[in-house]
Amino acid sequence: MNVFIIGLGLIGGSMALDIQREYKGTTVYGIDINEDHIKEAIEAEIIQEKAIFSDLNNADIVIVSIPVDVSLTVIPKVLDEISDNCLVIDVGSTKEQICDIIKEHPNRRNFLATHPIAGTEFSGPSAALHNLFNGKTNIICEVEKTAFKLQEKALAIFSKLGMRIRYMDPKSHDKHIAYVSHLSHISSFMLGKTVIEKEKNERDIFDMAGSGFASTVRLAKSSPAMWAPIFEQNKNNVIETLEEYIQNLQYFKTLLEQDKFSAIYAEMENTNHIKQILNGIKEVELR
Amino acid sequence: MNVFIIGLGLIGGSMALDIQREYKGTTVYGIDINEDHIKEAIEAEIIQEKAIFSDLNNADIVIVSIPVDVSLTVIPKVLDEISDNCLVIDVGSTKEQICDIIKEHPNRRNFLATHPIAGTEFSGPSAALHNLFNGKTNIICEVEKTAFKLQEKALAIFSKLGMRIRYMDPKSHDKHIAYVSHLSHISSFMLGKTVIEKEKNERDIFDMAGSGFASTVRLAKSSPAMWAPIFEQNKNNVIETLEEYIQNLQYFKTLLEQDKFSAIYAEMENTNHIKQILNGIKEVELR
Repeated sequence: MNVFIIGLGLIGGSMALDIQREYKGTTVYGIDINEDHIKEAIEAEIIQEKAIFSDLNNADIVIVSIPVDVSLTVIPKVLDEISDNCLVIDVGSTKEQICDIIKEHPNRRNFLATHPIAGTEFSGPSAALHNLFNGKTNIICEVEKTAFKLQEKALAIFSKLGMRIRYMDPKSHDKHIAYVSHLSHISSFMLGKTVIEKEKNERDIFDMAGSGFASTVRLAKSSPAMWAPIFEQNKNNVIETLEEYIQNLQYFKTLLEQDKFSAIYAEMENTNHIKQILNGIKEVELR
Repeated sequence: MNVFIIGLGLIGGSMALDIQREYKGTTVYGIDINEDHIKEAIEAEIIQEKAIFSDLNNADIVIVSIPVDVSLTVIPKVLDEISDNCLVIDVGSTKEQICDIIKEHPNRRNFLATHPIAGTEFSGPSAALHNLFNGKTNIICEVEKTAFKLQEKALAIFSKLGMRIRYMDPKSHDKHIAYVSHLSHISSFMLGKTVIEKEKNERDIFDMAGSGFASTVRLAKSSPAMWAPIFEQNKNNVIETLEEYIQNLQYFKTLLEQDKFSAIYAEMENTNHIKQILNGIKEVELR
């Protein structure tokens, strides 16, 4: 089996590692605009060979794992190049625009829109992890638009990687993921910013920080090249989540200002049942 | 050595475990208004015996690890009961009010105000951990007001527990800790609330959540009984941090609304160096 990974980062690299383990005799080819990433990926045995777009007609599977703005131009080009039985999997964090842009492509049936809910705050080939997808959710959009045999091929891979599948339309995906992923990233970045700005005037406050602070700002280490285009594509949904979040923070501040501490207690108690909700979502191990 | 722990939770319980390991022949007595916690703590060998306030005249060390509002009445009573050579250590998350309230107490010299920057989102005796304090920072306030021999005694214990000491006045402590701890808790609680509210109308969005979301809302599992009084005592500082945080979020929202995505990129890139800042702060392991 010839697998092509376009974008040798955390997700593409981790998929390459797992697929090689599960499918003996697979050759993994890598396409990346960053030559250093190609070298790193070959050294780390994530891929066997560098490839270029005109090689894609030899691909059985193409996994596109690049920033979501670049996907909008790359995926149509990939669909132009591939052979009739090739499966093209997109793994980006937004689904509405990409599904819309390729909806009339003659090879639309070769394309599967997915979003594996897996990752860390790190990027590049060195961030690739074995077994990253085991036990994680993979959201598949517009499954009915993919050729049935290619759906089966994709599901077999996802199953071997240990993923749970959830089907969803692209619009709902983008709306809901804004709440459970995109908002967390903004909250982290702005929390980091707030404290960094304070540190400029009041030195050495970071050595007072503990593990709680580290958890809440962990996502502020994430790659701007990946995240700016996500926020751009999901702008309207993200603005909506931000408005609700800011409203809740302002309400909490008002309670503080008015000394309504039993209401503050109740706010926290009502949110405490997130314990049960989070059961089963494992935080990522630190490295 | 007779050590009394008032409040058998995460911090008090963990200190009891480490002190017993380091000081052979120590007897640890527990005082707690919750009888179940007393039983649990005896079963888990966190303490050897239940005690009451009138036993405190036998104490060599008293560690007060209770909600910060209760401390304001309990610590003066403890100082009334103890013998002349007893060391009373407070480990609460706010320092200004407690230092103020006991400043004229005849046994002020027996008291040491500390804040070990250690913990998890869990509470009660079952949350106690061996080695919790190893490598963590302990902030000591107004050290000069504690009898020199008792300072030495405290420092010997903190050193055996593996803590790094930082000295600070209570006002600065409360101001800075609002940024690196109290704000993170509010950010987590309100993020959890925002998503829980959304889930009420749009079912099953939590199974789309991944490890990033879990990190950012982890602190929303924290105990309201512990945190409502912290926010009350540190109200003015916390309001200030919240204002700055909300302002940063609003600015990010404005950039989104105005399609200023290169400014958004720059915002994230500027905050990315939190990577280096956070080096050395280890996130807590999940349980």
